[in-house]
Amino acid sequence: MNAQDDTRVIIVGAGLAGCLLARLLGRGGRRVTVYERRGDPRGRGPLGGRSINLAISARGIDGLKAAGLEGHLRDHAIPMPGRMIHQEGRTVFQAYSASGEKAINSVSRSELNLLLLDAADECEEVEFRFGMACLDVDPEAGTIRFADEEGREQTDRATVIVGADGAYSGVRGALQKTPRFSFSQDFLEDGYKELTIPAVKEGPHAPYAIEPRALHIWPHGGSMMIALPNLDGSFTCTLFWPYEGPHSFGAVPPEEVREFFDRFYPDASAVMPDLEEEYRSNPIGPLATMRCRPWHRRGVVLIGDAAHAIVPFYGQGANASFEDAKRLAEGLLAAPGDPIGAIEGYYRDRVDQGNAIADLALQNFIEMRDHTGKGWFRAKKRLEHLLHGLLGDRFLPLYEMVSFTTIPYAEARRKARRQWRTLYAATGWTTGVVILILAAVLAITLPG
Amino acid sequence: MNAQDDTRVIIVGAGLAGCLLARLLGRGGRRVTVYERRGDPRGRGPLGGRSINLAISARGIDGLKAAGLEGHLRDHAIPMPGRMIHQEGRTVFQAYSASGEKAINSVSRSELNLLLLDAADECEEVEFRFGMACLDVDPEAGTIRFADEEGREQTDRATVIVGADGAYSGVRGALQKTPRFSFSQDFLEDGYKELTIPAVKEGPHAPYAIEPRALHIWPHGGSMMIALPNLDGSFTCTLFWPYEGPHSFGAVPPEEVREFFDRFYPDASAVMPDLEEEYRSNPIGPLATMRCRPWHRRGVVLIGDAAHAIVPFYGQGANASFEDAKRLAEGLLAAPGDPIGAIEGYYRDRVDQGNAIADLALQNFIEMRDHTGKGWFRAKKRLEHLLHGLLGDRFLPLYEMVSFTTIPYAEARRKARRQWRTLYAATGWTTGVVILILAAVLAITLPG
Repeated sequence: MNAQDDTRVIIVGAGLAGCLLARLLGRGGRRVTVYERRGDPRGRGPLGGRSINLAISARGIDGLKAAGLEGHLRDHAIPMPGRMIHQEGRTVFQAYSASGEKAINSVSRSELNLLLLDAADECEEVEFRFGMACLDVDPEAGTIRFADEEGREQTDRATVIVGADGAYSGVRGALQKTPRFSFSQDFLEDGYKELTIPAVKEGPHAPYAIEPRALHIWPHGGSMMIALPNLDGSFTCTLFWPYEGPHSFGAVPPEEVREFFDRFYPDASAVMPDLEEEYRSNPIGPLATMRCRPWHRRGVVLIGDAAHAIVPFYGQGANASFEDAKRLAEGLLAAPGDPIGAIEGYYRDRVDQGNAIADLALQNFIEMRDHTGKGWFRAKKRLEHLLHGLLGDRFLPLYEMVSFTTIPYAEARRKARRQWRTLYAATGWTTGVVILILAAVLAITLPG
Repeated sequence: MNAQDDTRVIIVGAGLAGCLLARLLGRGGRRVTVYERRGDPRGRGPLGGRSINLAISARGIDGLKAAGLEGHLRDHAIPMPGRMIHQEGRTVFQAYSASGEKAINSVSRSELNLLLLDAADECEEVEFRFGMACLDVDPEAGTIRFADEEGREQTDRATVIVGADGAYSGVRGALQKTPRFSFSQDFLEDGYKELTIPAVKEGPHAPYAIEPRALHIWPHGGSMMIALPNLDGSFTCTLFWPYEGPHSFGAVPPEEVREFFDRFYPDASAVMPDLEEEYRSNPIGPLATMRCRPWHRRGVVLIGDAAHAIVPFYGQGANASFEDAKRLAEGLLAAPGDPIGAIEGYYRDRVDQGNAIADLALQNFIEMRDHTGKGWFRAKKRLEHLLHGLLGDRFLPLYEMVSFTTIPYAEARRKARRQWRTLYAATGWTTGVVILILAAVLAITLPG
């Protein structure tokens, strides 16, 4: 093995995180081999994935910029500057930012994946090997075994082996067999099912059936549906319902789904002609949070969902994965002679961020499902925006920090808590309550 | 299959929980088959296990009573009515109870296991099959596959299959493959190593080298050693040290362990002639908390460490397992026609208890390691005992509820929090602080 071989990096998984990492390392002159279990999506149909569209925000854009790919978003994303809350057929728009102008971006997962794959493949240093399923990894020996599509086994070897192979990561599975590896998988009582609002020929938003520049939410009794716009005029809707209980997948059989929608999501029902058929045929997916500790053993290291699979409610899964990829690439490129040191630095930086966004994503489910429809919640959001307008960076709403900055997640969470504490201390509780009441009155009296 | 076969119960694991459950079901007239991976300990040496002695308290005694075996403790246990804290060669005794009379009981794990095994085997209804390793369980079919010691596979079938096979449960492993099974394993940064204080010929406590009626603790800088008495005059010591760091297994090589002990555990070092050899040869064991949800799929159900492996710091692992076994046996015996209903009732009752004692055991590590040596902690304990003396059952210290009652763990924790809140509310913070200061002065000025 020559000196050059020693710095080659093996990446397992050609999803979003794996392809971005390959591109960044390749652009940095590092040789990379990417192994992917599935076939080449460019020849054989789209790569699978958890959801059809993603919400890419500041952290994702930052990663794309580092890879020289930020132009893609201009051409292929639909900006969503706020939430559209649907209740009893009426809608209220809640801006995501104080200025009302900052937006998260609805993009197609498979298109973004293809873009990143092509961009990585452009680099001479990057080689892709498809149809290779990871069988086992040995962190001590720095070896990894694969089976090709005919079941033939092959072994490869590198100082750095990156598991970018998603929530059910095979690389993490191998690390789980090493001593004292902490791991958790925690399933919600809720599952998800994807449905469609197809494009329309006419109407005020044509080809869109409803306002395209928003993330739509239909909150309802401990469950919700959301919808994100696609470039072709359709929306991908996702039902987040409990598996069992009064308003659940278990309680609503396909033959009653139209009646249920007419009652609780009437304006959506009106634009969903294929509801019964899709509800009957589309699977229910589970929602899990997975965490582990550590994220590496020697040179075998995890990024993205393999290290921290989170629920989708903050729209941060892909964004967090891009941050991982960028941080790891920077570390490896900065210290070619000390890959283990670079990996340790990456882990120290990122583990708190992975845990923080996992927590925040769970909390945002409660917020979207139970609070977005409430007057007090809208008042609180307005108050936050008001305070941000008055105090600037001294008061940054948590949602803004998470979605529109690259402040590390854990720091954003701490800062958000501190801001409210400082505010209470500065104004006294009484004044705070008065402000809140004023804001509430404002919210109720103002339209929308 | 006849009607009688339908009510037969398969238990996997002939450890403490499995044997107690078999005994309770057998006494209730239920046919039971117990499969155990290891050989029969009565013919082939002791069953393995995590620690050589256990602290059995009220919940364990309650389980033994239900099995008609409470007499064993009278003959084979050493009561420990309090903690003996060793610091810089001096000792302080802290009673566990307000009366000073209630004690937890040091018993040999392997002897207790043999007692329970014999007691279960006495029942005509109970059959043991040793040397049978669980390969897989199918909750839908109600089948379980084993391999015998020659590797021959066998399948058995029952409506109720109980996994009592410990922290690394094979039955739980099979449940983990079912959809949406939540699971976590969380390792401490600390490990444990067992050492011995051998019996002595002479001295004030002979054959014991130190006071036998206490659980000894040597707290020291973020780590500790404990010692529990054995019937033969020896003590089993356990080092709970971090793997890495300033005072850790990594930092103290065998050739420096005597010097280290002389410095930090001097009175123990004086009675540990085999220290160097034992420190060198005995393994370091990991300390993990494992949780899962749910504890059953259809008729396949988990009890004891298989459902909730906890760290040993509250001395409640075996006690909690006995509570599980007793509760499950009661449910199954009360509803012979509805085993799944009985299992669901068991799970609903016990899951919060398993989580609560897992949390409490982790907290007690901090208490034992960092607080027991402090004056304020001793003052707080005295204050608790004082308040219990004054207020009776209206103020039950948490340790008393956990160790000397069968109040469910989660309820005990809630009650403990509520008591302090009520006290603060009733007396006002100022009075509370004054009482605490008085108690502190009392603690410092009184001997011991």
